[in-house]
Formats: sequence, structure tokens, C-alpha cells
Amino acid sequence: MRGTVLPGIDDVRRAAVCIAGFVRRTPVLRSASIDALVGRPVWFKCEHLQRGGAFKYRGATNAVQALDAATAARGVAAHSSGNHAAALALAAATRGIPCWVVMPADAPEVKRAATQAHGATVVLCEPTLAAREAILAEVLERTGAVEIHPYDHPAVIAGQGTATLELLEQVPSVRSVVAPVSGGGLLGGTAIAAHGVDPAIVVVGAEPVGVDDARRSLAAGRLVTEHNTTSIADGLLAVLSERTLAILADHDVEIVTVTEEEIIEAMAVVFEALKQVVEPSAAVAFAAVVRAGRRGTLPPGEVGVILSGGNVDLGALPFDRPTGVRGLTVDVEVRP
Amino acid sequence: MRGTVLPGIDDVRRAAVCIAGFVRRTPVLRSASIDALVGRPVWFKCEHLQRGGAFKYRGATNAVQALDAATAARGVAAHSSGNHAAALALAAATRGIPCWVVMPADAPEVKRAATQAHGATVVLCEPTLAAREAILAEVLERTGAVEIHPYDHPAVIAGQGTATLELLEQVPSVRSVVAPVSGGGLLGGTAIAAHGVDPAIVVVGAEPVGVDDARRSLAAGRLVTEHNTTSIADGLLAVLSERTLAILADHDVEIVTVTEEEIIEAMAVVFEALKQVVEPSAAVAFAAVVRAGRRGTLPPGEVGVILSGGNVDLGALPFDRPTGVRGLTVDVEVRP
Repeated sequence: MRGTVLPGIDDVRRAAVCIAGFVRRTPVLRSASIDALVGRPVWFKCEHLQRGGAFKYRGATNAVQALDAATAARGVAAHSSGNHAAALALAAATRGIPCWVVMPADAPEVKRAATQAHGATVVLCEPTLAAREAILAEVLERTGAVEIHPYDHPAVIAGQGTATLELLEQVPSVRSVVAPVSGGGLLGGTAIAAHGVDPAIVVVGAEPVGVDDARRSLAAGRLVTEHNTTSIADGLLAVLSERTLAILADHDVEIVTVTEEEIIEAMAVVFEALKQVVEPSAAVAFAAVVRAGRRGTLPPGEVGVILSGGNVDLGALPFDRPTGVRGLTVDVEVRP
Repeated sequence: MRGTVLPGIDDVRRAAVCIAGFVRRTPVLRSASIDALVGRPVWFKCEHLQRGGAFKYRGATNAVQALDAATAARGVAAHSSGNHAAALALAAATRGIPCWVVMPADAPEVKRAATQAHGATVVLCEPTLAAREAILAEVLERTGAVEIHPYDHPAVIAGQGTATLELLEQVPSVRSVVAPVSGGGLLGGTAIAAHGVDPAIVVVGAEPVGVDDARRSLAAGRLVTEHNTTSIADGLLAVLSERTLAILADHDVEIVTVTEEEIIEAMAVVFEALKQVVEPSAAVAFAAVVRAGRRGTLPPGEVGVILSGGNVDLGALPFDRPTGVRGLTVDVEVRP
């Protein structure tokens, strides 16, 4: 796509330096029980332990810290249904600048509370993209704030890539990296970082089969912006932008789709064997690994999975029935 | 108490060497959000990430590895409603010897499955102490196996103490250590280890108010073996032995009791702010810290909490209503 800025590995490496004083170097976990289930070593990059509970703080921090002082002073704004909201709020609070977030009224309570806890002003709107964009335009007009898009933003994409840069430092033996895909900021950053370290690393995106716009966009070679339905993975309902589609296409990223049942099962395995609280969107990448493992279609070698976030309403956990995976035991290795 | 073997700090240090090749050095987590809630640094020793999902593997391994070859070959046995069962099964499997575990028929399914996954023979019985002891006696008679008591056993107590030995290496600034108390193996080992490192460290035991036999035993100066009622903390229903009571009394261990509501709230905070899956029994120690923090009765300085286990049925999590603690955010430090 002509004229669009596509970040590269140098941008990811610069982002890692820029955000080092703000973000956590999250640990990597591995479970002997999960290795046995999948049939090979699986390493989980724990971005649910990142500040704010999601990888989003990496990209938000990189974008906010990159602003010149005069622009920053006017504040930042975004529309977001979830983790970008809290992340941007925290990144703005850390720089001491105001922040406005436009959220749909049906966003998870836990994500709204976290955004407000970081001092941002939450502006509620109807849960449609048109309403979000209209209200955000109004906020930008009224406040003079600069928009930090959740994913269609080079500094955000580069920031998200730093999770994979760290993962590959912590576990250099990883030969494939699997991340969930929504707007493509995390997956795009993942692909840039992984291929910047080693072009032979396989990069896989995972999405719910009901919201498979990334798969269809890559197959069609153009943006497909309609979903078929919805998903328990409420963080994965956005669609690619021209920019993120171009990155994923450039990097030959493969997309694996998973069912709602597979997402819940994968989430249960992460809870039971890793003892980690993750949100359904974070379980999607691991669900793709389990699916590929069962079908014998996993790429060769050790697998890295980005556990993207952990902000889930405890009152709405989907574990009201047996999950079908028995005999899992705890045996967790932690790599700092 | 005359004639009873009370382990000391040298036994804990020897246990640490003996089990080093088998147990995990579990990480220690700290949350800025929880520090703010309690009013000081709180460090969580992650024994829910220990092999088998609980600290119990430390004591079981120490006891099993201490057996001479001929005794070991006949196998080991115990009665246990939960984590000791799986831990002993795993310790026996690691040494390649048989294991029998007598469990009440109403033990949590997740703990029974874990025990069987490690290859132990599970013998179910009525959920009374008399039935457990009778069936165990039968198993010992029939098999020639040696009993490894869940807590009334010097090598088990010494093994449990290694968690605190590690914690104090990882975070030397800790001035008080809080552990849940059931039969007193963990709390006894904790007291021996903490005071072996520094006699000025305050050791606190936590138990549900409905099963406060440890508090009453220490107050009375003799074993009180009746509970008033029951608790969601199903791992804390055992009572002290003469041996563990003697250790707790020797070490001036203070007992804090907490309500069922406080246990569930503490469990929710661990899930929300630390993103860790722990069982209700593990939340009891943190509940005591929150309670003491609110009442201004916390001992001075940084606090260490033993997160004792994470084996909870996902279908039975007690989060069907709001927990009342809002505005928690994720900001986790990991100390390996």
C-alpha cells in the first residue's frame, strides 16, 4: 500500500530501548503437562502479567513517549473496547498527560474500571464502530488531544513487537511464534520482531472462526471488514487495517481459526496447568497450537505463545462445566 | 512433649539439599496494587506453581527420598483429602516405588485426578477420620507399605520449611511470614525455617474462623481436635498433632482467623491483581494479611505469604458475584 508507514525491526529495537524503563520484562512459563499435550516444548510469554494486564502497554507507551512535549501536553485519546484503553490511560498517567478513552457501553466492567483507575476520562458510546469514531472525533475536536490508534499506528505496532523480541532473548530455541489477531497490531509487531531476529521463524496468527476477517483478508489479498458472528474472545473483534494487512502479507503470516469450544478448553488448560488467569482472547493463540498439534500441522520445533492479556471478569469465567481435559498436572518452569 | 522428634533448622537445610534435584525453586511475586491495598510490600511465594500444584511435594519428596532402599521398595501410603495425596504419588513415582492413597469419596475431583495421573492407587473411603484411619491401616497391613503422614512426620515438616528458606533467600527483607495452618506441617516448617534464619522474623498462621482448632489449641496449651463447622478452604480441615502443636508453641506462632467472605475476597484479589489461580486454602494466608492490614495489627516490615496451592475445580470457583475490591490493576514483579 503506497504511502503507508510500515515499521521494521529497527523500529522494534528502538521501541525496546524507549520503553525499557516503563514496561515489565514479563516472564516466560512452560508446563511439562502442556508439552506432553501438544507434543513439544511450548513457551508462554506472560503479557497478562504486563503492567495493566496486557501487551497493550508496550505499544501505548512507545507511542506516548514518542510525542514531542507540546503535543503530549494536549493529551491523548483513543476508542477501545478494552485493554488498549487501560494501557493508554496508564501510559498517559506515567507521562503526566491527560487521556480520554471512548468505550462501548457493553465493554467488560473489569476493563472500564482499570481504565478509570489509571485516571483516564471514559466516554461511553453505543457499541458500533460508527458511534465510536463519531464520539472520538468529537473528543479530539473538543480537547485538542492526539489520537493513539489501538493498532493502526507504526509506534504502537513496533511497541507490541518488543514482547516477541524479549521472548526470543529468553528462549532462543523457539522456532515458531503464535499470537492472537484482532486489528493486527500485536501480530504485525510479532512478525516484524520474529523475522528481524530470524527470517526462518514461522509466525502464526490465531483468531476465532466466527471473526475470521484476518484469514479472509489475507486469502483475498484485500481488506475484508465484516465478521460472520461474534466470540467469547471479546478482545479480538476489531478488523485489520490496510497497514497491518500489508505487514501480515509481507511476512507470510499464516492464520489458524479456532472454535469457541477450543478457546474455552485452551483457557481451562492455561488455568489448570499453568495456574495463570488469562482472558479468552489470550487463550485463542494457545487454542490454535492445540488444534495444530492434534492435526499434525504444527510447524517444526519449539513453540512460543503470546499470552496477550488477563483482564477477565471473574464473575463471567466460562467454567461451569467440565472442560474435557483431565489428568493435567502442574509442573511449571519459569524463565525470567 | 516427651519423646517426640521435633525437627530443627538443620533438618530444613538438609531437606533443601536433599530435594533440590526434584522440587522447583518457585518464583516470588509482588503486586504494586496489592502493596497499596495492604499498605506495605507483600511477597507471594508461589507454591501453587510447585510440582503437583502445592508445597506438599517438598515434604513428600524429603520423606520418600529419606527411606532406605528396602523400605522404599515396599512402597508408601497415606490418607489425604487433597494435595498431600498427589504430592506423595508424584514423589513415589519419581523414586519408582508404589503408592497407595486413601481419600474420602467427597475429595475434590481435581485432586483425585492428579493423584491418579501420577500413578498412585486411590482407595476411596467414607469422609470421616475414623474411616480414613481404618482403611489406611488395612492398606498398610496388606501391602507392607510405610505410612508417610501428611504432617505428623519430621521429614515432612522439614521439607515444607524449605519454601520459607527459599523465600528468605529470594527476598531477605521479609520481616514476617504468613502461612495457612491445617495439620501444622507447613506452618511448623515455616516457623523453624524463619527463626533459623532470623529469630526476629514474626511467624503468623492463618485459619478459617470455622475451623480454628489451631488458635484454640495454642490458647489452651493442649490439642483441641474439634472444629466448629467447615470452610470453603477444604485443604485446612485437619487438626494439629502433638508434634506440630509443640513446634508452634515453641516458636510463639500467632494465629489469625478469617471469615469465609474474607477468604473469597482474598482469593479474588490474587486472581485479579496477581493473575494467579490459587485454591481457597491458599487465599487464607493472604486474607489474614488483608485483615491485619485493615485493623492496623500487621507486624512491622515487609510481609511474605505462602501461596500454598492452586488445585481448585474450575467449575466450582466462588466468583458468582462481585467481590467488592475494585480498581485493582496488574503490576507484577517476578523474583526468580
